[in-house]
Amino acid sequence: MPYVDIVTALALIQFIFFGFQVGSARGKYGIKAPATTGNEVFERHFRVQQNTLEALIGVIPGLYLFSRYGNPLIAAALGGVYLIGRQVYAVTYVKDPAKRGPGYGLTFLPMIILIVGGGIGAARQLIWP
Amino acid sequence: MPYVDIVTALALIQFIFFGFQVGSARGKYGIKAPATTGNEVFERHFRVQQNTLEALIGVIPGLYLFSRYGNPLIAAALGGVYLIGRQVYAVTYVKDPAKRGPGYGLTFLPMIILIVGGGIGAARQLIWP
Amino acid sequence: MPYVDIVTALALIQFIFFGFQVGSARGKYGIKAPATTGNEVFERHFRVQQNTLEALIGVIPGLYLFSRYGNPLIAAALGGVYLIGRQVYAVTYVKDPAKRGPGYGLTFLPMIILIVGGGIGAARQLIWP
Repeated sequence: MPYVDIVTALALIQFIFFGFQVGSARGKYGIKAPATTGNEVFERHFRVQQNTLEALIGVIPGLYLFSRYGNPLIAAALGGVYLIGRQVYAVTYVKDPAKRGPGYGLTFLPMIILIVGGGIGAARQLIWP
Repeated sequence: MPYVDIVTALALIQFIFFGFQVGSARGKYGIKAPATTGNEVFERHFRVQQNTLEALIGVIPGLYLFSRYGNPLIAAALGGVYLIGRQVYAVTYVKDPAKRGPGYGLTFLPMIILIVGGGIGAARQLIWP
Repeated sequence: MPYVDIVTALALIQFIFFGFQVGSARGKYGIKAPATTGNEVFERHFRVQQNTLEALIGVIPGLYLFSRYGNPLIAAALGGVYLIGRQVYAVTYVKDPAKRGPGYGLTFLPMIILIVGGGIGAARQLIWP
């Protein structure tokens, strides 16, 4: 599963990068911790990071479920779609939150395929071992 | 471990469902991204989702720790209690946050058993390999 | 990998402990759910817990990536540095958020080594199997 492991590492590095952008926006717009509100652009960066956290809790187990019961290369390719979709999501969200839809879809779709595909694979193995 | 894998997939689908409810509440109560406050009912849905994220970061590794060193079927059964407890938590929290206690307990209890049970199992294997 | 599994269990127990401190601060400063703002000290406890969640999503997969391709004992030791750093982070953040830097660094450094080290190990195995 090295392909899946590389995608996992890249997804985490992307998340850390979004975290850096939150930290940088803190300085730029003068939002002192522990506050997480007070400037619209800061809040966009913060929500991109938080929403990516919500995505990762599904994508990472999904990658391993799918590659355990299905094809690890397809799992890694779906992870690649997620990585690109997240980048689109982050850029469009910060520009205009109302336009975050397509990028969100490009991360949601691979995530749901990984989770549901993995779950169905596990159920199949229980029924027809 | 297909039982544990199925529970993991179900817990993630439940989390995604809570996310949909947040999105739906955004539209219903007119809370535009990146805001996460401004309407009490929206905030309840949002906190249900966020608290479920906080639970999943413990429950998912806990399921695998417990099933590695203990009984995978008991791990999956504890995961089943978590799934039901979370559903109770979500419904009661949105109705009245002050009544979220029992549902919370039903998700906290299996989580802590999975984590502590798994950790003790790992320590036992180190001491008596 | 029992060493890594023990570190994972300890990191989750530490996170649960931070969650208890948030709950306790809710009572002490009268912040009723679903609110997450309204008192500076409550918000510090809340941000410590939330930031730990953001760290765990990286540290836990990182521990397993690093121990799969590298030395599990080094992975566990890096996890130990994370555990101590997080404790320093929590204590200093609640006292004075402006002084959270060193504790943050002590959790960020092992996290990034685990993730990047694991990712490079996976890439090496693909190139020179």
